[in-house]
Amino acid sequence: MADGELRIGLVQMRMADDPDTNMQRAIEGVREAAAQGAKLVCLPELFRSRYFCQSEDARYFDLAEPIPGPSTAALEPLVKELGITLIASLFEKRAPGLHHNTAAVIDPSGYLGKYRKMHIPDDPRYYEKYYFTPGDLGFRVFDSAAGRIGVLVCWDQWYPEAARLTALKGAQVLFYPTAIGWHPEEKDAVGSAQHDAWETAQRAHAIANGCYVIAVNRTGFEPDPAGSGGIEFWGQSFAVGPDGAILVRGPIDREAVLTVDVDLRRIGTQRVGWPFFRDRRIDAYGDLTARFLD
Amino acid sequence: MADGELRIGLVQMRMADDPDTNMQRAIEGVREAAAQGAKLVCLPELFRSRYFCQSEDARYFDLAEPIPGPSTAALEPLVKELGITLIASLFEKRAPGLHHNTAAVIDPSGYLGKYRKMHIPDDPRYYEKYYFTPGDLGFRVFDSAAGRIGVLVCWDQWYPEAARLTALKGAQVLFYPTAIGWHPEEKDAVGSAQHDAWETAQRAHAIANGCYVIAVNRTGFEPDPAGSGGIEFWGQSFAVGPDGAILVRGPIDREAVLTVDVDLRRIGTQRVGWPFFRDRRIDAYGDLTARFLD
Repeated sequence: MADGELRIGLVQMRMADDPDTNMQRAIEGVREAAAQGAKLVCLPELFRSRYFCQSEDARYFDLAEPIPGPSTAALEPLVKELGITLIASLFEKRAPGLHHNTAAVIDPSGYLGKYRKMHIPDDPRYYEKYYFTPGDLGFRVFDSAAGRIGVLVCWDQWYPEAARLTALKGAQVLFYPTAIGWHPEEKDAVGSAQHDAWETAQRAHAIANGCYVIAVNRTGFEPDPAGSGGIEFWGQSFAVGPDGAILVRGPIDREAVLTVDVDLRRIGTQRVGWPFFRDRRIDAYGDLTARFLD
Repeated sequence: MADGELRIGLVQMRMADDPDTNMQRAIEGVREAAAQGAKLVCLPELFRSRYFCQSEDARYFDLAEPIPGPSTAALEPLVKELGITLIASLFEKRAPGLHHNTAAVIDPSGYLGKYRKMHIPDDPRYYEKYYFTPGDLGFRVFDSAAGRIGVLVCWDQWYPEAARLTALKGAQVLFYPTAIGWHPEEKDAVGSAQHDAWETAQRAHAIANGCYVIAVNRTGFEPDPAGSGGIEFWGQSFAVGPDGAILVRGPIDREAVLTVDVDLRRIGTQRVGWPFFRDRRIDAYGDLTARFLD
């Protein structure tokens, strides 16, 4: 490929009960993406387990691990062997009673660092505030073997501030490992609008910042052990170009390894054509640090 | 209508050469919207003239006027008679050699105030930096007879910061008077992607902020007196609900008076369902006032 051209892999997974099974399937998915030529690969949010945040139960803290730790140690040799850069979303145990929803970045040189999810949701069946302390590392980019990448996680995707700050740090691609789906009983009424809003919000990040955006979701129905009705994860992992156009979109209800060819030189072309960065009114944005201005 | 329900009118216009003709047609459009029950009506950007920014020519400064001034004086009795609130985008002469791209807000009580376009574009055929000094009034809301509205103008629509700051001030509806279109010679190659990005960016403002968004564009081809090839304004004025769904979209190539029924109570419902305002990381947004962070 020419300078700036790059194949990216999106590993959309259905999670099993057993974390080791999920690790094994993640490795298979990463291998498949690499076999197709992907140099930059992303896994779904918290890929080692079922989405345990459907209920608040202290035993799930046992799933957490240090980062770097066992999962990054398992993935580092794979990454080195395949010559790729990998984004792996994991449940981080930082200290007893202190946990984060964290994404690790690994490239052939080893573990590059981590991003701790800054915006933590808390809604019925997504009780993340019980499990995760909001990140304290700020918005981050990683100079990987495959380019300067920004990593954000799921709920962050609704916040233009997060995308902007990451793009201002020079991110060429924004990655969003994700776990989002429908409450089955609401799906007929609002499911289509919810999915459309999710995709639209992230396409807008690509447009506003003239960069690539990649969202990697899980798929499949996961029951809630507490009996709430479960979540039907809506799949449809996707990639967006710097003009906001969808480049690839995965299936709703099955696993898939998707690849997309990007050309990082398009970032410059796009931003010269639509020079939004030129005209930001940084003198007038100070109140973005306010909670409300009413 | 029940409390919170409201009909909004979008007057999509094709501009004639003569400013008085445009004022007359604008008045007809506003009357038609009001006759259909609209209580809040928006005209396109700089509706009194052709889009003169296609070229840089000092004689066009003669089109500018004080605000309040002749145009607001002409519209105030109309607004009073119809009992509506009107957003009128005008070319403001503030002092000799000092001009703004400004939107006036008028309701039955009279002239409420103005917003001066904060983000000023400058691209081939959109040479606005020659004509307009960037606004110095910041992002604003207006407590009109029809609710608290935010007014932004055209190029602002690409900036999530502008939408956010206006929404944080309590805007229930964001209005974007607009003049955007295709370079005819580019239209086949990129016209569809450009329009889609424009709509997507604004839908995302509705989603991120849980409010209504209204964009009112002009339509029709306007030649460039300097011979560049002109602009084919793409019409398609639209309204978006707080979930990002398009509620109405106008035609591409002809004038239209569109109306849309909104229910301001949906703003609360939406924001409770998707509580994005709850989780903003205001402790981590300070760098949004940086030009770049590389």
